[in-house]
Amino acid sequence: MNDVKLICPQVKNMPWQDPPEKILNAPFWRYKSNPIIGRNPVKNVARIFNSAVIPYEDAFIGVFRGEQVNGIPHIYLGRSKDGIHWEFEEEKILFEDEDGNPFMPRYAYDPRLVKVEDTYYLIWCQDFYGAAIGMAKTKDFKKFVRIENPFLPFNRNAVLFPRKINGNFVMLSRPSDSGHTPFGDIFVSESPDMVYWGKHRHVMSKGEEWWQSLKIGGGAAPIETTEGWLLFYHGVTGTCNGYVYSMGGAILDINQPSVVKYRCENFLLTPEEWYEEQGFVPNVVFPCATICDGETGRIAIYYGAADSYVGLAFTTADQIVKYIKEHSVLRKTDTEIGRR
Amino acid sequence: MNDVKLICPQVKNMPWQDPPEKILNAPFWRYKSNPIIGRNPVKNVARIFNSAVIPYEDAFIGVFRGEQVNGIPHIYLGRSKDGIHWEFEEEKILFEDEDGNPFMPRYAYDPRLVKVEDTYYLIWCQDFYGAAIGMAKTKDFKKFVRIENPFLPFNRNAVLFPRKINGNFVMLSRPSDSGHTPFGDIFVSESPDMVYWGKHRHVMSKGEEWWQSLKIGGGAAPIETTEGWLLFYHGVTGTCNGYVYSMGGAILDINQPSVVKYRCENFLLTPEEWYEEQGFVPNVVFPCATICDGETGRIAIYYGAADSYVGLAFTTADQIVKYIKEHSVLRKTDTEIGRR
Amino acid sequence: MNDVKLICPQVKNMPWQDPPEKILNAPFWRYKSNPIIGRNPVKNVARIFNSAVIPYEDAFIGVFRGEQVNGIPHIYLGRSKDGIHWEFEEEKILFEDEDGNPFMPRYAYDPRLVKVEDTYYLIWCQDFYGAAIGMAKTKDFKKFVRIENPFLPFNRNAVLFPRKINGNFVMLSRPSDSGHTPFGDIFVSESPDMVYWGKHRHVMSKGEEWWQSLKIGGGAAPIETTEGWLLFYHGVTGTCNGYVYSMGGAILDINQPSVVKYRCENFLLTPEEWYEEQGFVPNVVFPCATICDGETGRIAIYYGAADSYVGLAFTTADQIVKYIKEHSVLRKTDTEIGRR
Amino acid sequence: MNDVKLICPQVKNMPWQDPPEKILNAPFWRYKSNPIIGRNPVKNVARIFNSAVIPYEDAFIGVFRGEQVNGIPHIYLGRSKDGIHWEFEEEKILFEDEDGNPFMPRYAYDPRLVKVEDTYYLIWCQDFYGAAIGMAKTKDFKKFVRIENPFLPFNRNAVLFPRKINGNFVMLSRPSDSGHTPFGDIFVSESPDMVYWGKHRHVMSKGEEWWQSLKIGGGAAPIETTEGWLLFYHGVTGTCNGYVYSMGGAILDINQPSVVKYRCENFLLTPEEWYEEQGFVPNVVFPCATICDGETGRIAIYYGAADSYVGLAFTTADQIVKYIKEHSVLRKTDTEIGRR
Amino acid sequence: MNDVKLICPQVKNMPWQDPPEKILNAPFWRYKSNPIIGRNPVKNVARIFNSAVIPYEDAFIGVFRGEQVNGIPHIYLGRSKDGIHWEFEEEKILFEDEDGNPFMPRYAYDPRLVKVEDTYYLIWCQDFYGAAIGMAKTKDFKKFVRIENPFLPFNRNAVLFPRKINGNFVMLSRPSDSGHTPFGDIFVSESPDMVYWGKHRHVMSKGEEWWQSLKIGGGAAPIETTEGWLLFYHGVTGTCNGYVYSMGGAILDINQPSVVKYRCENFLLTPEEWYEEQGFVPNVVFPCATICDGETGRIAIYYGAADSYVGLAFTTADQIVKYIKEHSVLRKTDTEIGRR
Amino acid sequence: MNDVKLICPQVKNMPWQDPPEKILNAPFWRYKSNPIIGRNPVKNVARIFNSAVIPYEDAFIGVFRGEQVNGIPHIYLGRSKDGIHWEFEEEKILFEDEDGNPFMPRYAYDPRLVKVEDTYYLIWCQDFYGAAIGMAKTKDFKKFVRIENPFLPFNRNAVLFPRKINGNFVMLSRPSDSGHTPFGDIFVSESPDMVYWGKHRHVMSKGEEWWQSLKIGGGAAPIETTEGWLLFYHGVTGTCNGYVYSMGGAILDINQPSVVKYRCENFLLTPEEWYEEQGFVPNVVFPCATICDGETGRIAIYYGAADSYVGLAFTTADQIVKYIKEHSVLRKTDTEIGRR
Repeated sequence: MNDVKLICPQVKNMPWQDPPEKILNAPFWRYKSNPIIGRNPVKNVARIFNSAVIPYEDAFIGVFRGEQVNGIPHIYLGRSKDGIHWEFEEEKILFEDEDGNPFMPRYAYDPRLVKVEDTYYLIWCQDFYGAAIGMAKTKDFKKFVRIENPFLPFNRNAVLFPRKINGNFVMLSRPSDSGHTPFGDIFVSESPDMVYWGKHRHVMSKGEEWWQSLKIGGGAAPIETTEGWLLFYHGVTGTCNGYVYSMGGAILDINQPSVVKYRCENFLLTPEEWYEEQGFVPNVVFPCATICDGETGRIAIYYGAADSYVGLAFTTADQIVKYIKEHSVLRKTDTEIGRR
Repeated sequence: MNDVKLICPQVKNMPWQDPPEKILNAPFWRYKSNPIIGRNPVKNVARIFNSAVIPYEDAFIGVFRGEQVNGIPHIYLGRSKDGIHWEFEEEKILFEDEDGNPFMPRYAYDPRLVKVEDTYYLIWCQDFYGAAIGMAKTKDFKKFVRIENPFLPFNRNAVLFPRKINGNFVMLSRPSDSGHTPFGDIFVSESPDMVYWGKHRHVMSKGEEWWQSLKIGGGAAPIETTEGWLLFYHGVTGTCNGYVYSMGGAILDINQPSVVKYRCENFLLTPEEWYEEQGFVPNVVFPCATICDGETGRIAIYYGAADSYVGLAFTTADQIVKYIKEHSVLRKTDTEIGRR
Repeated sequence: MNDVKLICPQVKNMPWQDPPEKILNAPFWRYKSNPIIGRNPVKNVARIFNSAVIPYEDAFIGVFRGEQVNGIPHIYLGRSKDGIHWEFEEEKILFEDEDGNPFMPRYAYDPRLVKVEDTYYLIWCQDFYGAAIGMAKTKDFKKFVRIENPFLPFNRNAVLFPRKINGNFVMLSRPSDSGHTPFGDIFVSESPDMVYWGKHRHVMSKGEEWWQSLKIGGGAAPIETTEGWLLFYHGVTGTCNGYVYSMGGAILDINQPSVVKYRCENFLLTPEEWYEEQGFVPNVVFPCATICDGETGRIAIYYGAADSYVGLAFTTADQIVKYIKEHSVLRKTDTEIGRR
Repeated sequence: MNDVKLICPQVKNMPWQDPPEKILNAPFWRYKSNPIIGRNPVKNVARIFNSAVIPYEDAFIGVFRGEQVNGIPHIYLGRSKDGIHWEFEEEKILFEDEDGNPFMPRYAYDPRLVKVEDTYYLIWCQDFYGAAIGMAKTKDFKKFVRIENPFLPFNRNAVLFPRKINGNFVMLSRPSDSGHTPFGDIFVSESPDMVYWGKHRHVMSKGEEWWQSLKIGGGAAPIETTEGWLLFYHGVTGTCNGYVYSMGGAILDINQPSVVKYRCENFLLTPEEWYEEQGFVPNVVFPCATICDGETGRIAIYYGAADSYVGLAFTTADQIVKYIKEHSVLRKTDTEIGRR
Repeated sequence: MNDVKLICPQVKNMPWQDPPEKILNAPFWRYKSNPIIGRNPVKNVARIFNSAVIPYEDAFIGVFRGEQVNGIPHIYLGRSKDGIHWEFEEEKILFEDEDGNPFMPRYAYDPRLVKVEDTYYLIWCQDFYGAAIGMAKTKDFKKFVRIENPFLPFNRNAVLFPRKINGNFVMLSRPSDSGHTPFGDIFVSESPDMVYWGKHRHVMSKGEEWWQSLKIGGGAAPIETTEGWLLFYHGVTGTCNGYVYSMGGAILDINQPSVVKYRCENFLLTPEEWYEEQGFVPNVVFPCATICDGETGRIAIYYGAADSYVGLAFTTADQIVKYIKEHSVLRKTDTEIGRR
Repeated sequence: MNDVKLICPQVKNMPWQDPPEKILNAPFWRYKSNPIIGRNPVKNVARIFNSAVIPYEDAFIGVFRGEQVNGIPHIYLGRSKDGIHWEFEEEKILFEDEDGNPFMPRYAYDPRLVKVEDTYYLIWCQDFYGAAIGMAKTKDFKKFVRIENPFLPFNRNAVLFPRKINGNFVMLSRPSDSGHTPFGDIFVSESPDMVYWGKHRHVMSKGEEWWQSLKIGGGAAPIETTEGWLLFYHGVTGTCNGYVYSMGGAILDINQPSVVKYRCENFLLTPEEWYEEQGFVPNVVFPCATICDGETGRIAIYYGAADSYVGLAFTTADQIVKYIKEHSVLRKTDTEIGRR
């Protein structure tokens, strides 16, 4: 019986593998046939990674960061019956503006995909005279309409909450700079209409733990649980030979998500496998999406690996929330309301 | 008779000196007794610079960046009868929140001061878990109420337009990073309520002209003229011995201020005098405010000098708009709508 | 039957493997037993890579960058019957000056080897009070005579054209700086006598495509074809964890090689295999030489992998020229004559 | 029969494998089942590497850098019967001060372990308001008493000599800076009492050989031989994609260890295996300890690999001293007394 | 009547000027004829600055940083009757070792001069295979004998206390790196014999106040008072156009000088005059020595200005201690014992 | 009577002032009314500096770096009767190619002007897809014809010798990089025809003396004397607050100018006056041209000051050559032939 409940629908066919016998640290275990998406997955695309999926009509659909063979990333649509084997459209997603005119970003990467009420929102990073957040909405995955960029540059790693809070849309994001940002905290912002954004609050800073001591950034859309919003994010540390991206976990207050209730001092997943340590950007574990089953509490997380592959790992709400709470270390900037 | 009209009230007692006989380049001339504010102007304040003034009750009032003797800047109120000789309050401005509780920024610098409708708005740069824009409003210069920070960090050099456009408040700002930002373009954003901001548009990029080749930032509040919004901004170049800040000028479309109509390829003022070249940050001319007389078209500009002094310079609407138009060089990112 | 002809002799015993059944992107395929040269190939040499080979007396000969166990690179001679299995001399190549006196470079790396008329020229990077191009000539691969360094420092990746153009020797090179150059375009220069060089022209800049957005540099000697000079070069991009070197392709005007006729927007080969992603410098594919068969149009390319290995890949003139032309994107600095 | 004698006790059960048939370069050969310590060796510890072992009571004991799952390193005790298979205590070593009060370092990494007279000394790198050397002593591996930090920050890679010289304790160290030090030479210092340190002398600088051209640092405790103190140290070079750490060797004067008698121009071991090239910090071979058998002259060296694993390699006193002497290249800063 | 007593001899002829009528901030006032030492003070010396003086035989003597016309600094002896007008020896000070052999540093800068018991100690920064502290002693200012360098590199700004504490010599210093150190705290160390140093403790870190937010360093020798050790030090901040050096003040515990009792949040002197803002290194106020009169409590401070001049300023023990105490802000790293 | 003869024509009306009574160091003295060219010297030009003059038709003519008010430098023609008071053409020099078509550089700075045989050559720095040397020739100062760029980028500070040596044109230059080059040595190159350049030789490296420890660059055209080629060049050092440019002197072998015969260890002129220390780039003394009188041995040097002004200083051949020889310090890279 589960103590912690996921507040989300049942997903009967969600991908799943049982855990190994012994788990020393965080209760996350990798899919045994990782990576689930390899090199050159589709014509003109060299690598797919840092991508987001969602249940859709008894199957799964997703938006994928496809690194074209000219090196420029765009977003590709993929479909899967089991969440593991994916088929991709060969043409990148074609966005239009509110008037139906083509309105393509110059590039687009690290997409997230969140359903709020009856609409699916895509959120990604794009050029807005500098790296910034781009957004589009769709209801049928056929027509993708761009909506206003929510923030000024420079920003990356934005992700919507799956429902309104206190009547407003709510979004996490990570202010950045024009390059390989060597700093960065997570903020939360509100909007009554997905056009104008405000009431910005600081959520949490990079941590004293070394794995997240350089910067952090939102990963998968927060998951509603009986304990609060369960957030899987990435934390970055710097070595003399580059950045290392790991996955961390926190639980945000259900009504006031700028307040962190629990924050795990330990990483939940860190590069250890060849497909995480070796590739276009070595040493990257970068979570972008989860599939959650409200019935069983099972969670499958999709993460980019080494900017070259997509990996899949599993946990359950019960286990992971327990681990986060048992290893929670909070600091002042975590618990305060985040207004200055 | 003036061809270009300033759309603003008459200011009878505004500070003024007639131009020198011969002007080789831009029609801007310095006040002969510059700097008008020297070192150690008030107890506990080592330097005042980068500050903003406005006509108020037949005299002038202003908000001043006061660098305390502990090195930390805050905003100080000053009053003047002639706009030249200023008296400062010894205590920094004490802000409160909407509920009347004290709500001080940790530091506050480079304030601007703009009246929209019947309210005076202060806009400055402060710590919001990173350098960002802070704002407050006042009607009487006694009670200063903080309002929501409009943007996520990192941002500097924000300034309001003096009236709503198309029903919305409108603000310029310059996205930045966590340090001495070595890049930066000006954007414009809208708000229906001064709480939520959106419809962000790019206004203009740093320029190919060397004096503004590193970054630019908004200066004084845009001045409404019969030709469009007259904008005095700063442009920065980099030498082997540091940054050099000059003043530039542009005219924005009156209804769609993300579109630049004219942009002067030449600087309007550049460090040449000892008080601009020597000080805490050498080689800085940094405009923050103007006083304009709708009757005569006279414009007095207040600028920070070398992060140590306040300087004053003069022009007229007619002369400066003519010069900007005659030396206008526009590029694609100037004239486009600024949406991506 | 081939549409594109290689203007070069037949090489009957050139290394070759037929292509795989399905090629998604650029028509280049790796030799299945790559790498063809592994670690510690000869006493005192830890790694051989970034090296150049040429047909010679019914077999193959080459000049190889051998990284000594003290870390300092020099050039080693190697011989092979099939172009795949190589035997190396244990002593590095001993250069002499025009008077027959020993004249060794302090270090020498990334050699190219080109036959013009009846002489073989070695071109490499060496210390000339800074990284610069060194050159020597030989007719018998026994006596190697140094000739004048063609350019002032800092320069890397120079390679001769295999015949004179308009009566002059012609050479590509890539101006650099004193370290890990984070910029760089390819230029072409002429010489009547291999002593004095001039009529420098810009050929092409780094590209907007991300894989070549940081710098580019000449690779193998240009190959004469009926479509122009076929050039395989390297393009470099930067990630938060280091540079990534890929192979690109372009076709230069046959009489005026500073003019680019076609330039492929896609990389032709990018690090994907363990020996390209893992080693002394991870993520490097660095082409230095080709063997071409004028009869069949077959092309074998030798490339350094991860600064640790030598890899081999194949294409045909027909396929690769077709691919380059179909995916050609030219910009102003490509097509102009390159004089300023 | 051995020409070079190790001045140390017999260690009958020391780990050993015979050399391969053919050795091209330095006479060091890796243990065939490397790495001997893999990922997640103990609960809450993600990686063990850069660690030191010593014979103890007919078996082996060691102090290990354990990277906790929060990314922060501490020192863990391990025991082994054969020097190859290790069992670790789950709790990090708890240090106390001279009064028996708990006195933990905030973090501790890269420990060395040296017995002088009847006491075992642990030396590591820790936070002393900056990276500096921490030390403790034990006689029973149960009680670990911190002693005075020998040097001001910033310092790393300190290691004691295994006996006093001229009546003083003697220690090597490597002055550093606050980050990923891009420079560094080895110094030697003396102390009459392990409290006050002085008579600092320079031992050797980074070298002209490229593998040690960036910085060097002491590795295992110097080994007393009939030829002088045999020192295995690490040398670092910089590539465009990061640092590469190799192992070097030198022999210091037995009575005046600031004088280098021989210094091998070639690395003795450099990253070549997957566990050395791939991991948290790719391309690291980092020696920290040896086990030596005075009877046979056998030497086993323990080295950190890629900041992720522990590797083991072997040589003999005879072979390695001969190789170092045959390939010795000395420069002025090696042979001088090191006083300025 | 004075509340705070200086524990030092009377100095009847010490330089002095009465304070100006009004002092807004810290009670320090500049000598009206500053700078007291101008450009090209002596043959072959371009600039003298950052220098130390002391009462000697009814007059004053000092050791001066003389920047030779080849740019390399050495220490020069100067003598003065009034402490204001100085005559310099043309030959730099010639140091010898304990055996009377010449033993010159390669360069020497920023000297301090402290009398402990009957000996005068010179402490400076020099090359010890990296920037480090050099020391010499003299009793007659004719024979200068080098003693052991107290610390490993990298270190700058060391200064002795003027008497032993708890039986040991005591010295402040500032660990550094190989260049223009962008960080740095003050430490204190002890020695029983001026040969071996230990019991290192952290004294204080750079501060949150912006004028000392980058690094700090010891200035003049601590002055014994009835309130504790009065320390004038320098604090550094960074602007986009370089560092700014100001003077700060603190009071250390008389018996345990690693404990800060008071630390003034405001600078005591900051660059404001042309000779402080303009020169070889603009914006530098760098205190190196004081002359104190035990009778009157008068303090004269000598400071380097813009790495080009020597300036003089005055205060009294009473006034300055009062100001420091009234504006004291202490943080945890100030008050703790400084052991980790 | 002069011992050292200048091998050049008499210049009767050359600018001159007698030396001051006492000269402590190098025998150079500034013109008392410096700067001779102030701010805003001509319409649209903010500053003139780093410029070259030459006797012409009983008066003087020169090419001047004019920093336009858009910040972009071009070359302006100036004329003077006395070499001190200058009149400038308002239009920048218009260059054409060999066919008489306009051929303007995008920018042009730091010009030198040298007469070889009957032709005047202008040499400057310009954009050639990167900073490089541009050249033009004129016989009448009316028609200026561009000739081939002699070198690949990146290069600055090139200057011709005033006559052929061994039948070839000879030019000094300083290889650079794409920005504020933090390194740089002087090289010499030859050309038979001003089209093709080769036989590059290294002349001299930056020096151990601190004033020239960062980089050096050629200044005025070498002056032929009976002792060899007298070269005034600039040397640069780096401080925490930027670069400092001083003037140095050397004498090159008359027939083999890559060999340095004497090189003065002391600077000859260093920033000391307000117009050298304060301006667009503080702390710059940058010599670009001399006027020499073969009859009297008088030398007037024109130098840029602070990238804002032109200064003038004087010496005589006798005095300066004597000083250089007396203070000559040569190192290996000075005296060797400069071929590698």
